[in-house]
Amino acid sequence: MDGYSNPILINHVVQMDIPFKSLINFDKSSDLPVYRQIANSFIQNIQTGRIPTSSRLIGTRQLADLLGVHRKTVIAAFEELNSQGWIEMIPRKGTFVIKNLPEIKPVSFQEMERYMGCNLKNAGFYFEKSKIVIPEVITQKLAFNDGLPDVRLAPREELAKLYNFYFKNGEPSVFQYAHVQGNSHFREVFARILNETRSLSVSKENILSTRGSQMAIYLVGKALIKPNDEIIVGELSYRAATLTLTALGANINTIPVDGDGLVVEAIEEICLRKTIRAIYVTSHHYHPTTVTLKPERRLKLLALAERFRFAIIEDDYDYDFHYTNNPILPLASADKSGLVIYIGSFTKWLAPTFRIGYVVASEDFIQELSKWRRIIDRQSDTIMELCLADMIENGTLKRHAIRSLKVYHERRDFACEQLKSELGERIEFRKPDGGMAIWANFDKKYPLSELAPNCRKYGLYLHDGETFRSENGNLNACRMGFASMNIQEMGEAIRILRKTMDNMSI
Amino acid sequence: MDGYSNPILINHVVQMDIPFKSLINFDKSSDLPVYRQIANSFIQNIQTGRIPTSSRLIGTRQLADLLGVHRKTVIAAFEELNSQGWIEMIPRKGTFVIKNLPEIKPVSFQEMERYMGCNLKNAGFYFEKSKIVIPEVITQKLAFNDGLPDVRLAPREELAKLYNFYFKNGEPSVFQYAHVQGNSHFREVFARILNETRSLSVSKENILSTRGSQMAIYLVGKALIKPNDEIIVGELSYRAATLTLTALGANINTIPVDGDGLVVEAIEEICLRKTIRAIYVTSHHYHPTTVTLKPERRLKLLALAERFRFAIIEDDYDYDFHYTNNPILPLASADKSGLVIYIGSFTKWLAPTFRIGYVVASEDFIQELSKWRRIIDRQSDTIMELCLADMIENGTLKRHAIRSLKVYHERRDFACEQLKSELGERIEFRKPDGGMAIWANFDKKYPLSELAPNCRKYGLYLHDGETFRSENGNLNACRMGFASMNIQEMGEAIRILRKTMDNMSI
Repeated sequence: MDGYSNPILINHVVQMDIPFKSLINFDKSSDLPVYRQIANSFIQNIQTGRIPTSSRLIGTRQLADLLGVHRKTVIAAFEELNSQGWIEMIPRKGTFVIKNLPEIKPVSFQEMERYMGCNLKNAGFYFEKSKIVIPEVITQKLAFNDGLPDVRLAPREELAKLYNFYFKNGEPSVFQYAHVQGNSHFREVFARILNETRSLSVSKENILSTRGSQMAIYLVGKALIKPNDEIIVGELSYRAATLTLTALGANINTIPVDGDGLVVEAIEEICLRKTIRAIYVTSHHYHPTTVTLKPERRLKLLALAERFRFAIIEDDYDYDFHYTNNPILPLASADKSGLVIYIGSFTKWLAPTFRIGYVVASEDFIQELSKWRRIIDRQSDTIMELCLADMIENGTLKRHAIRSLKVYHERRDFACEQLKSELGERIEFRKPDGGMAIWANFDKKYPLSELAPNCRKYGLYLHDGETFRSENGNLNACRMGFASMNIQEMGEAIRILRKTMDNMSI
Repeated sequence: MDGYSNPILINHVVQMDIPFKSLINFDKSSDLPVYRQIANSFIQNIQTGRIPTSSRLIGTRQLADLLGVHRKTVIAAFEELNSQGWIEMIPRKGTFVIKNLPEIKPVSFQEMERYMGCNLKNAGFYFEKSKIVIPEVITQKLAFNDGLPDVRLAPREELAKLYNFYFKNGEPSVFQYAHVQGNSHFREVFARILNETRSLSVSKENILSTRGSQMAIYLVGKALIKPNDEIIVGELSYRAATLTLTALGANINTIPVDGDGLVVEAIEEICLRKTIRAIYVTSHHYHPTTVTLKPERRLKLLALAERFRFAIIEDDYDYDFHYTNNPILPLASADKSGLVIYIGSFTKWLAPTFRIGYVVASEDFIQELSKWRRIIDRQSDTIMELCLADMIENGTLKRHAIRSLKVYHERRDFACEQLKSELGERIEFRKPDGGMAIWANFDKKYPLSELAPNCRKYGLYLHDGETFRSENGNLNACRMGFASMNIQEMGEAIRILRKTMDNMSI
């Protein structure tokens, strides 16, 4: 029945008119005790004006009969209501809803269903909608993704063992609030690895542990950028970073990218015209085009940063995965002035679900980042950090990296061969020296905006190239991750791609 | 030796002058192969100007002798350098550092130690320092903290079992990128619980899973507040929330707080003078003073929000822990207009290390929050969410809550009795109806700024009251968490507190 049209809502305080039987709802099969459900139902009716302020309630015996419950249940509900302050029990007079509640325009049950508990299409107040784009979740088993690892290779057994250990035997401190920069032991171990493999010379004070490189980029942007600060990125650049820095108010300036990475020579001209706050660069494997920034450009970039005093945000998102030679030392290894802010992640070593990234920078800047870290997300995942530290120290992570590198190397070679032999002139790409994706330019006869949805009909995910096209109108290109599919799956994925293109050619 | 004063730095390209033996460093005990260490060392010397552009390197045999390594090691190092593009091997002429590198002012080893590879005190660029305060990490075993659960009671065995299951048997999708709002199954299960226990009527679309309530507060602030927007908080209020909203640019307006919570009657006067964007309220157990917002004020607050169209940020941080009656339904349960943004956390049920919180609000607002979530931290912890869903469905979480509630109830009673009998007039407090902390006013003869450090000498953490004093100069008060210490520890803590006060009285 519709509470809105009920007489009690017009004629106040006439207890007889309150249709308790229809107003008070409960479900005996619920986990919540019936007396609490009755109390909550009363509160809901008071809060929404269906039982008005000062109303006299009927007796417990009468109500128990009406609702078909034991009288003790009603008494318990009334005691709860009394104790929470919603009703008053006045001896020899009866039980009343408390006085002086504001008058509430009663809401019908239908309206409640539509409006209650925040289930609204439109909030009752204005808020500005940002332009941030949320990436879709890829559900296809066959997927040319952005360049993700194969989660089936993740060291899950080892992680299970370590988690089990810490859950059962971890000191209380493991479960308490922790240092905002991340677990101290983890940072010590990790600093050692950075110094050894990347020729840095950092200590744990230079490291902030983050939730993946995404949080690292956000924090760096937050601490560095004020609205309308100017930053530089490549003409094509890692989309999520540009999005993040733009959302934080940065103005974006672009410079060309070629087969040797960012054309850093174009920076000077911009710096002579305006003050540049920072440059964002994926120096190791340029995102999206996968190329490596060549040595002389590295040194030129550093020299320009020194001359014009801008920060270099170096995002080294998949450092360890390089096939033609060993990983290249990061720009951070040659930073004499604290201008390089070095960002990385363990995601590519493990799996996307494990959000462990980091920022390496000067102590004072790390302290500033830590403040923002503190208010966006108080601390990182201590248990995961301890597990990682153990896996670094006992060699598991290294063995895993070597194993994965070998597998991904084979997959890269296989994917490149197959794409060449199956698709021939329809696709143009350069075999990447590292990383987990191929940057592929498609023949214009196969616009990705059509090709991608067509492939999906056969269960294959292919990027629709939209983000790259929007940055450069002429492009019909996308990244094709090769690491997450095994040889057999890759073969099938390329067959589907070919068949789809064949169909489009008819 | 000091590279800075070396002749090669003045006389370019005279190979004989390059002191390779002292410049090239490696450590045979390192995990990194020696040839890679030699290559990295070369790169470091080139990057920092000690081996200049176009320099001719000495022969591999000669270098091998000089360094005391096998010639093959040197050859491998040179091949690596060649492949990375740092040197050129010109047949019949020799091996050269590549041409056209920018001139770099060489850095001495001493300077390197101080400056290189980010091991820096100071960033080489200016950045503004925010006023965000990072809370100290409490290391004392005996601690009157802010009101934290006893991590020794956390359902760790059960979590260990579930984690083990998902690590070993989880579908690949568990380890991949996930929905930005949180795992769909978890949100469905949790929506059911919210509807059942808190009289909401929400679906999974109304829920955003966050990293603790801290991230929830930040996201809500980010989506809601533009610089100089006006918000209202209590004269005393949860410090971390005020900090967060201030850092996002909000202007803070305060209203009084009394024994029944926020004095909401004071809101109207402010709203008549200026546009208020939002009010932040811990309605269930007011932070810091622990009182519960009384029913008529709840309805008045909702009516005021409707009238002046401001949002209510309701932070229900420890919903389940109420001792004198059942938990009070949140303001969100009476929200007819989508004005209430409901924030909560599982931290108090589990342990601070598990950062699982949530926002419940209208769908469109949740979508906006999700955009910001996406750029500050791409997704939540899928495995943890699945474990929580399981623990909700199999009753573990509820059993755990009931068990903890009983323990904390006893600890509250014991702490209150002991504080009264041991400290008498020196301390004034009201037994809290719920939550995990007592709000204690200390006699001015024992300023917390002295008492707290004195207690620490005996291994007891006590808050120094500074954050509360700075909000209200007259206060000599702090929160005293009672949940994380068992009866014996509490007894000892209160004995130390008493002894310390005795000493101060002499």
